[in-house]
Amino acid sequence: MTLKIGVIGTGMIGRDHTRRIQQVLAGAEVVALSDVNAASAEAVRKDLAPNAKLYDTGEALIAAPEVQAVLVTSWGATHEPYVLAAIAAGKPVFCEKPLATTAEGARRIVDAEVKFGRRLVQVGFMRRYDAGYVALKHAVENHTGAPILVHAAHRNPAVPEAYLTPMAIHDTMIHEIDVFRWLLNDDYVSARVLYPRNAARSHTKLRDPQVVVLETQKGVLINVEIFVNCAYGYDIQCEVVGEEGTAKLPEPMTVDMRLGAKRQSTILTDWKDRFVASYDVELNHFIAAASKGGATGPSAWDGFAAAVTSDACVLAQESNGQAVAIELPARPSLYN
Amino acid sequence: MTLKIGVIGTGMIGRDHTRRIQQVLAGAEVVALSDVNAASAEAVRKDLAPNAKLYDTGEALIAAPEVQAVLVTSWGATHEPYVLAAIAAGKPVFCEKPLATTAEGARRIVDAEVKFGRRLVQVGFMRRYDAGYVALKHAVENHTGAPILVHAAHRNPAVPEAYLTPMAIHDTMIHEIDVFRWLLNDDYVSARVLYPRNAARSHTKLRDPQVVVLETQKGVLINVEIFVNCAYGYDIQCEVVGEEGTAKLPEPMTVDMRLGAKRQSTILTDWKDRFVASYDVELNHFIAAASKGGATGPSAWDGFAAAVTSDACVLAQESNGQAVAIELPARPSLYN
Amino acid sequence: MTLKIGVIGTGMIGRDHTRRIQQVLAGAEVVALSDVNAASAEAVRKDLAPNAKLYDTGEALIAAPEVQAVLVTSWGATHEPYVLAAIAAGKPVFCEKPLATTAEGARRIVDAEVKFGRRLVQVGFMRRYDAGYVALKHAVENHTGAPILVHAAHRNPAVPEAYLTPMAIHDTMIHEIDVFRWLLNDDYVSARVLYPRNAARSHTKLRDPQVVVLETQKGVLINVEIFVNCAYGYDIQCEVVGEEGTAKLPEPMTVDMRLGAKRQSTILTDWKDRFVASYDVELNHFIAAASKGGATGPSAWDGFAAAVTSDACVLAQESNGQAVAIELPARPSLYN
Amino acid sequence: MTLKIGVIGTGMIGRDHTRRIQQVLAGAEVVALSDVNAASAEAVRKDLAPNAKLYDTGEALIAAPEVQAVLVTSWGATHEPYVLAAIAAGKPVFCEKPLATTAEGARRIVDAEVKFGRRLVQVGFMRRYDAGYVALKHAVENHTGAPILVHAAHRNPAVPEAYLTPMAIHDTMIHEIDVFRWLLNDDYVSARVLYPRNAARSHTKLRDPQVVVLETQKGVLINVEIFVNCAYGYDIQCEVVGEEGTAKLPEPMTVDMRLGAKRQSTILTDWKDRFVASYDVELNHFIAAASKGGATGPSAWDGFAAAVTSDACVLAQESNGQAVAIELPARPSLYN
Repeated sequence: MTLKIGVIGTGMIGRDHTRRIQQVLAGAEVVALSDVNAASAEAVRKDLAPNAKLYDTGEALIAAPEVQAVLVTSWGATHEPYVLAAIAAGKPVFCEKPLATTAEGARRIVDAEVKFGRRLVQVGFMRRYDAGYVALKHAVENHTGAPILVHAAHRNPAVPEAYLTPMAIHDTMIHEIDVFRWLLNDDYVSARVLYPRNAARSHTKLRDPQVVVLETQKGVLINVEIFVNCAYGYDIQCEVVGEEGTAKLPEPMTVDMRLGAKRQSTILTDWKDRFVASYDVELNHFIAAASKGGATGPSAWDGFAAAVTSDACVLAQESNGQAVAIELPARPSLYN
Repeated sequence: MTLKIGVIGTGMIGRDHTRRIQQVLAGAEVVALSDVNAASAEAVRKDLAPNAKLYDTGEALIAAPEVQAVLVTSWGATHEPYVLAAIAAGKPVFCEKPLATTAEGARRIVDAEVKFGRRLVQVGFMRRYDAGYVALKHAVENHTGAPILVHAAHRNPAVPEAYLTPMAIHDTMIHEIDVFRWLLNDDYVSARVLYPRNAARSHTKLRDPQVVVLETQKGVLINVEIFVNCAYGYDIQCEVVGEEGTAKLPEPMTVDMRLGAKRQSTILTDWKDRFVASYDVELNHFIAAASKGGATGPSAWDGFAAAVTSDACVLAQESNGQAVAIELPARPSLYN
Repeated sequence: MTLKIGVIGTGMIGRDHTRRIQQVLAGAEVVALSDVNAASAEAVRKDLAPNAKLYDTGEALIAAPEVQAVLVTSWGATHEPYVLAAIAAGKPVFCEKPLATTAEGARRIVDAEVKFGRRLVQVGFMRRYDAGYVALKHAVENHTGAPILVHAAHRNPAVPEAYLTPMAIHDTMIHEIDVFRWLLNDDYVSARVLYPRNAARSHTKLRDPQVVVLETQKGVLINVEIFVNCAYGYDIQCEVVGEEGTAKLPEPMTVDMRLGAKRQSTILTDWKDRFVASYDVELNHFIAAASKGGATGPSAWDGFAAAVTSDACVLAQESNGQAVAIELPARPSLYN
Repeated sequence: MTLKIGVIGTGMIGRDHTRRIQQVLAGAEVVALSDVNAASAEAVRKDLAPNAKLYDTGEALIAAPEVQAVLVTSWGATHEPYVLAAIAAGKPVFCEKPLATTAEGARRIVDAEVKFGRRLVQVGFMRRYDAGYVALKHAVENHTGAPILVHAAHRNPAVPEAYLTPMAIHDTMIHEIDVFRWLLNDDYVSARVLYPRNAARSHTKLRDPQVVVLETQKGVLINVEIFVNCAYGYDIQCEVVGEEGTAKLPEPMTVDMRLGAKRQSTILTDWKDRFVASYDVELNHFIAAASKGGATGPSAWDGFAAAVTSDACVLAQESNGQAVAIELPARPSLYN
């Protein structure tokens, strides 16, 4: 039984997910495509899904009878209406981050799904499917004792001029925000941002690096270095300190070489390579759950919590080292 | 376009490949199953491939019109006739190791494929698809300079009583035999076996550990420790020493923990976990090539070369440290 | 020419330094000993320095004509008067930390030495002589580019009940306070302390762990985890993030073992073992400089700066996450 | 009580040991110097030991009443007569490797010392005092179970044209020959040499690299790669495989850096830096034992065993892969 998927948005990530479904993963096929740029949709159809039908609008695609599940990989501002439409149609929907561009928008999706009565939404927080984070979570739950501290870093070699201070939260730290809630099985209560001097490679509209300090309900203190002009590579670090010991996120697999008086191994420079395998796994999970009419993994509630936390972090960026409170409403039972 | 595959032999590996095709990989489905134990085939059909047809014999399955490609995962002694039948039928065939139980048998397959005129056979040497070996080969071809030495180890925690000295070659070292030919792009000219004292956990009919020394046409000296009662884990090591430096096979990804006065990480104990991801990749490659009517990757010639080398190694095991020559006939142009 | 040293205070560290001078290092001998507990001094004399003369008071020892240089390894509260007396006598003096129990006391020593007109005091901040920190400083000055962030941890397996929150600064973090000023060639401008929940092994009068955040004049942001009930071992971590890349303090040398499905190496549990080699080096430097009538290495000014910083950190411990300013007077030219 | 030492041979190593005794280590002083090149001895006297007396011959130095112990750091061919003379004089003697240039010469020293009736000779096999090898020996004796295999490598970046094939044994592998006897508490019974193709950087009179295979009385099989044109650095590797697991010689301490898309750390290139700390330790041991009129550590018997083994290895270099037997006479009880 093959799941029939419609893809809304055929830019880089929409094309890549289509390739994944058509050429890599079992159990699904792309039967419908839509993009504001019709030529883009046509190109993806031609290259990857010759049997797919093109739709003028995402709404039409969602409504199409042959479409059993929806991928929303369009421009961020359009995520909310498409996801709401999919819920209204009772169709499982995978939505790339952000679930919505505001916490209120994410909340509307949560409310709609709760009203519908069963999970339909999976948000594209792929790190939860990364083998390294999964192994780290296993270590934390079985070996380190209850977590007390997390030391993390998210480093990018460089960013374009258009990358401004708040994007360090919305575009970069958003992944840590979600994955640490999942890793620690916890929620945030406050955020604080501390700055060293600006890096020489940064510019006047970007404070870089910055250290975001999160506090959780269970009392864990998390510090995350965000450094998007670190020059040397794309590097994700995470160490959990628990009652009995520590555990570190594995490094990507590398060949240890000895050359020219140096022991050396390669560091990735492109973020797309760092978690590439986890995209396959997240979509495989989506296909499995959607084939049964539902959804698992990162939920609309997780997307909402991430949005609320991001807003607090951005406020904290302008709060001169003061802690900003993070308050979530009661969690609907659908998400327990 | 979905490749229709028939699977001959539904034991552990046949079942696992069926699961892979049905639930993990895109582009293929299992449409036919056969096993000398009909109940086994029926169980796999029921659990994993409900639409597959059962055949009484492998020959009947190969002949079935709906079968476009064949997986041979039956008992080793039956590999040769099934592969020959698939070649005769002009159908792409993936054959688990060994390609044949004798070098002569492997040679008959090579001859049949050469006569057919185009590659149809892929042998199940999955290490060539392991991300670690692929990265090592890249390092050797781009960084270390021309190889001169290889130091390797293949360690198993334990083996059953039925495991005898020659199985250290046929069942264990066979993987190194193939993967080093590919890694070095070279052929062997001699084999030598040296023994330390027997490990206490071994038994009288098994010399364990042993060190196999291979020499290549290009003059590379390879020493491989085979130790199948090493107690501590399943561990595969490989270091290449070249003109400019060295490169090591990556360790499996692990979480570095600090607990109880020890820095520690987990070592695998089950060989099935070590190269698990490479099975997906090798079958993905088979599906891609077979969908175009052919085969790529480890060839019948590679299977033949491995068989000839194994025979020499087993002879060397009884040769008191003397080198045994390895001679291959001229390589048919089909395999260049 | 052998330097004649008098040792005031023959407890654990005084005895150990005496052993070092008598049995390990060239160029010096212990000719005088003094301790409030005369039996202790006599025992050290008998065991390690049979030719040494015993003095009733530190003052008498300092005044003794045969004493060319002084080691102050007595109880902390007595350091200031002994160091002042040594300066008054014009004799080089090595003083274990703290230089004085208050910043004012350390200031008095600075003033006395400045008035004397040349350096006589070396403070026992041995980490500056540790081969690991020396290598890290070399990397920071030659490879990483200008420092921007430092992530550090100082972990102890356990502490006695008498260890209270301020001791995390005075007894533990004091080493980081000094070594980072030296490592970064910088001074602090503020301190902040953040707390996660208390570790289960801690007690009500000890907040543990804690994260101390220091900011420097050059704009480096330093976060130091102090965790004195970490259970698993004595562990010192330090990573410097600069404009071009990062550098990490080396781990202590260990044997990598593979045993029982674990890759493992030993973590130290006793702080005395961690920097044991650096004690030899610091005293060797003291002997070399004192033989020429002066002192090098960690100065009275460094001891004063450490005292001022410690006071600010202890204040910050009670300041609810607010930054506490650190202000040093102008540095006397003697210390440039 | 200061041990009065005479140094015969004031070349690089003699000068360095003199510096060590005069400026680094407690408990000894150099009171006499001698060298065939009188200007060299005078220069060392002036720079490092102004109170030392110069002697025209080593024999005169040994006979001098003020000399309590002797260091032999002269040209290899002169070691035997000087050591014999020291034994005849009943004075402890530290002799750099080789103890003698022939096994017969080493045997004469053994016989003389046995006749004297108590140990006077320490041979300069400094690796036994290296903290890494000491830690490895501890791991082998406490954790890995009884040894079965040793995999080792001794790599040099480059050698001069005058370095010929046998020097790979006499000058390079000699250290492994001694240290493995000590590490395993075992003796050799055979040696075998295997060659890959020659490295491009080698020359016609030097087979490089080579793999020396040693077998011990207890049945351990040791393979040592000797590669003196490895280009990338000076690198010493050793892994012991035992009944329960493996243990590796620690790498030298390094700073882990991340720069320019590479994780990297420095590899030494000068052999003198690799075991530099162990020279201090070995001389400290010599001073301690000689102060009591005797000697400990690597003995004349160890020097003899190394000479016998070296001779067998050199013979094996020309034996086309055949094993050459290594036979030692009965060990005199003095050396048990």
